[in-house]
Amino acid sequence: MVTIEGIQLIGFDNSAAGNEHFSSINPATGEVLQYTFRKATESEVNIASEKAASAFQIYRRKSGIEKAIFLETIVDEIQNLGDQLIETCCAETALPKARIEGERSRTLHQLLMFAAMLREGSWLDARIETADAMRSPLPKPDIRYLHIGLGPVVVFGASNFPLAFSVAGGDTASALAAGCPVIVKAHSAHPATAELVAKAIRAAATKTQMPDGIFSLLHGDGQVVGIKLVTHPQVKAVGLTGSFTAGKALYDAAVKRKEPIPVYAEMGSTNPVFILPEALQTQQEKIAKGFAASVTLGVGQFCTNPGLLVYEKNTSAAAFLQRLAREFENTSGGPMLTEIIFKSYEQRIAHRATLQHLEVFADGKKTTGKHCADPVLFKTTGDIFEKHPDLAEEIFGPTSTIVEMESKSQLLAAAKNLSGHLTATVHGTDNDLASHRDLLDILEQKAGRIVINGFPTGVEVCHAMVHGGPYPATTDGRSTSVGTASIFRFTRAVCFQNMPDQLLPAELQNENPLGIWRLVNGIRTKDRIQ
Amino acid sequence: MVTIEGIQLIGFDNSAAGNEHFSSINPATGEVLQYTFRKATESEVNIASEKAASAFQIYRRKSGIEKAIFLETIVDEIQNLGDQLIETCCAETALPKARIEGERSRTLHQLLMFAAMLREGSWLDARIETADAMRSPLPKPDIRYLHIGLGPVVVFGASNFPLAFSVAGGDTASALAAGCPVIVKAHSAHPATAELVAKAIRAAATKTQMPDGIFSLLHGDGQVVGIKLVTHPQVKAVGLTGSFTAGKALYDAAVKRKEPIPVYAEMGSTNPVFILPEALQTQQEKIAKGFAASVTLGVGQFCTNPGLLVYEKNTSAAAFLQRLAREFENTSGGPMLTEIIFKSYEQRIAHRATLQHLEVFADGKKTTGKHCADPVLFKTTGDIFEKHPDLAEEIFGPTSTIVEMESKSQLLAAAKNLSGHLTATVHGTDNDLASHRDLLDILEQKAGRIVINGFPTGVEVCHAMVHGGPYPATTDGRSTSVGTASIFRFTRAVCFQNMPDQLLPAELQNENPLGIWRLVNGIRTKDRIQ
Repeated sequence: MVTIEGIQLIGFDNSAAGNEHFSSINPATGEVLQYTFRKATESEVNIASEKAASAFQIYRRKSGIEKAIFLETIVDEIQNLGDQLIETCCAETALPKARIEGERSRTLHQLLMFAAMLREGSWLDARIETADAMRSPLPKPDIRYLHIGLGPVVVFGASNFPLAFSVAGGDTASALAAGCPVIVKAHSAHPATAELVAKAIRAAATKTQMPDGIFSLLHGDGQVVGIKLVTHPQVKAVGLTGSFTAGKALYDAAVKRKEPIPVYAEMGSTNPVFILPEALQTQQEKIAKGFAASVTLGVGQFCTNPGLLVYEKNTSAAAFLQRLAREFENTSGGPMLTEIIFKSYEQRIAHRATLQHLEVFADGKKTTGKHCADPVLFKTTGDIFEKHPDLAEEIFGPTSTIVEMESKSQLLAAAKNLSGHLTATVHGTDNDLASHRDLLDILEQKAGRIVINGFPTGVEVCHAMVHGGPYPATTDGRSTSVGTASIFRFTRAVCFQNMPDQLLPAELQNENPLGIWRLVNGIRTKDRIQ
Repeated sequence: MVTIEGIQLIGFDNSAAGNEHFSSINPATGEVLQYTFRKATESEVNIASEKAASAFQIYRRKSGIEKAIFLETIVDEIQNLGDQLIETCCAETALPKARIEGERSRTLHQLLMFAAMLREGSWLDARIETADAMRSPLPKPDIRYLHIGLGPVVVFGASNFPLAFSVAGGDTASALAAGCPVIVKAHSAHPATAELVAKAIRAAATKTQMPDGIFSLLHGDGQVVGIKLVTHPQVKAVGLTGSFTAGKALYDAAVKRKEPIPVYAEMGSTNPVFILPEALQTQQEKIAKGFAASVTLGVGQFCTNPGLLVYEKNTSAAAFLQRLAREFENTSGGPMLTEIIFKSYEQRIAHRATLQHLEVFADGKKTTGKHCADPVLFKTTGDIFEKHPDLAEEIFGPTSTIVEMESKSQLLAAAKNLSGHLTATVHGTDNDLASHRDLLDILEQKAGRIVINGFPTGVEVCHAMVHGGPYPATTDGRSTSVGTASIFRFTRAVCFQNMPDQLLPAELQNENPLGIWRLVNGIRTKDRIQ
């Protein structure tokens, strides 16, 4: 068993300078858990940042294989935490054991995916232009290009994925893969889980001889410790999944720095689902079941939770709605991740219930228990939705709003008015989809991922995933937080002109010793250069 | 001959709503040129932006080949301008004919490079994960990924490259290639040149049936028309080469928008050149000649102009300095691009000449003529340089500062203290370079391009170029403004989950009808999917 110490992990050192304390709470019981955590001081923020900057100078020269071994060893060390991690995490989040076990698998898979990418090596987009001394009017120089890490990265743990978007989550994995040291600002809802995972990373760093400062974990408030980290001159990029308020505050702080830095904040999304006419008629059961399940999965606490259901009124609508009501009434909620999240859900639901223009269409089953959210489905018309764009705003929890459109043109107009979302989903038969290419074309401009005949919850960790989307879904719609393309959050390209071969990074040397794909004079090849 | 009308080109329409006028001036003579230009009104900014947004909806569905033909037709139309373009441009900039002809070649080559990239098609980084219904515990969906254009892009013409970084320059070419309409804010120093090139683009757009609004040209002040464009809700990205003040003002305006957008501003760079000990001894002539030429090329009006020369003192230094002084004394200046640029150069040079801690080391030949800048080389010590970091700031023009370091450690410390630059150059023998890997490692973190035994002026247009660098060289060090990688300034990735094959973009369809490179389940291939 690993002892939870409630301190900051600053590189290989423990630090306990702070005098402010907090504890985590079991949201399902309200019980204050036994561990006490110190909040980091400004001096601890500075030490972690300076250590990360020093570590960067060593870590950035590590080979892809060395970095891969580090990530693989993190996987081993997290596995070694065994049931202690699962139990601690369940107690801090009220998430069920099977979910946390699944999330652990996903987290480890993600680390291994980046390790495999580093071992293969082609990710860094090596580009080579060979010299041509004879070119007229000017000789062509030899130019070679690849991606390098930006420097220390600050990652904010998210409450709703205590493993996969937290200490060893996607941003940490991609930053470490990119060659960047990481400082995690732990989420205050699962500090013990954070410490366990951080100690696993530290153990892996020690075992694989990584530099002191390659990884740190700090506790504290986002507005204090978080802002200090984001504004520290040694910090070069920031990753966050959280609320619009939190994400925007960090973004604003980062762009006002003497040296502005990129902030990749995923801030919320309503993930609209559209049902096209034939599907509304022929796929009622599948859509009703799937939608009710997707809205209430994990007590609705997913960034891809579908908060809007839009369809064009036709003769099948009444039957579909009946079916959907029945399915929804069979769902149930459960304890939310934190008291704050629960209270916010309750307040926002209560507010919507008072709105004249919104009908409470269906309720899920009531759950009695601490911080338990009950599912609610609202309904309104396209006319009202047009006048009240705030109905498209996310409510974090097991709720959604049905919007009945009078016509296809009203539906298209609503789609055009959407702001940026992580996902957009369309249910349609082949006929439907063929006759709604205009809708698909609009949605492609509004979201990072377009889902056909499925549901947005469930984000595949793979090369082709885009988990991101135009503002305000994220602060940087050019980026994804899931999948291998996320590594480019934390890199920039550099090129070398007429650099002697032996001084080039191995990836750019003539012999192509790593056997990677390269773009040589415009041709993609693994060949060596003659 | 094309008539210069001095109006705004808003899509396919001319517009002359404004009542404020200006004229361009021949900087070499002070002569006010015959053309009068209107500044765009707020309403014209709005119309151009809305038209660009409408055009985007059509242009974004054009195939790579259609976009390539558009770019190739722009090349033809610019060539058709013939000597009128060269003469107009020479009159507005005082740049010599050969230089403008060379810059035209470069501009056309750049457009053709993007056209070739579009015809080949692999640039959009297509990624495909095929479904696996049998996967446990959850089936794997089909996910397909590619890059799409962001939307209307605003490009600011630069004074120092009236063709290659102006109306049909790099940002325009890459934005059009990415599928984005472009609005150019013409530089007030070469408005007639801008109108000619804009009319060539408009002719090409008409001939290739591109949508109205795909391209507009507006005149006016950066602080007025420029800021209005950058803050217009329909504008989705901005490209600029200019001063720190101009770039930072646009960046600040863009990040404060309701929907923040990316600004790629290249803002200045001192492009330090380091001479290592053996090279200082054995390559005196080559370095002295090359450096003097690079500092004074084009009257020093290049963003890659080397403004710092750093070496470690040894017994060869005196001889090298003597040689350098001789070479520099043989250089001459000439008329600068604008009166403002000339006055700024004169003031800053006059200020530096008063500094006790800076020696005027060598003067170029005096030129008598309107707005003529004379080359000046300053010299100081490493100790002084350490105390006066402002000496590392760019002075736009034919000047540079020599810094003599007492020791390698002083040289390394100075390198570490550098801010971001576009380039960093090192002259060294093989021995020198091997013994200064620490210096190379530092410089890689400070610049976008590392030049060995050459000079930074001259930016090769190719796949492997990085013309960018960490802040404050640019506002976004993750990006390049030259070379094919610049297309990613104006794109984001989107993915499609379980989209029927026939509704996918051709690039992602099973058959791979375009025969492009794709990453299929992690394997790079041109094969079709079974």
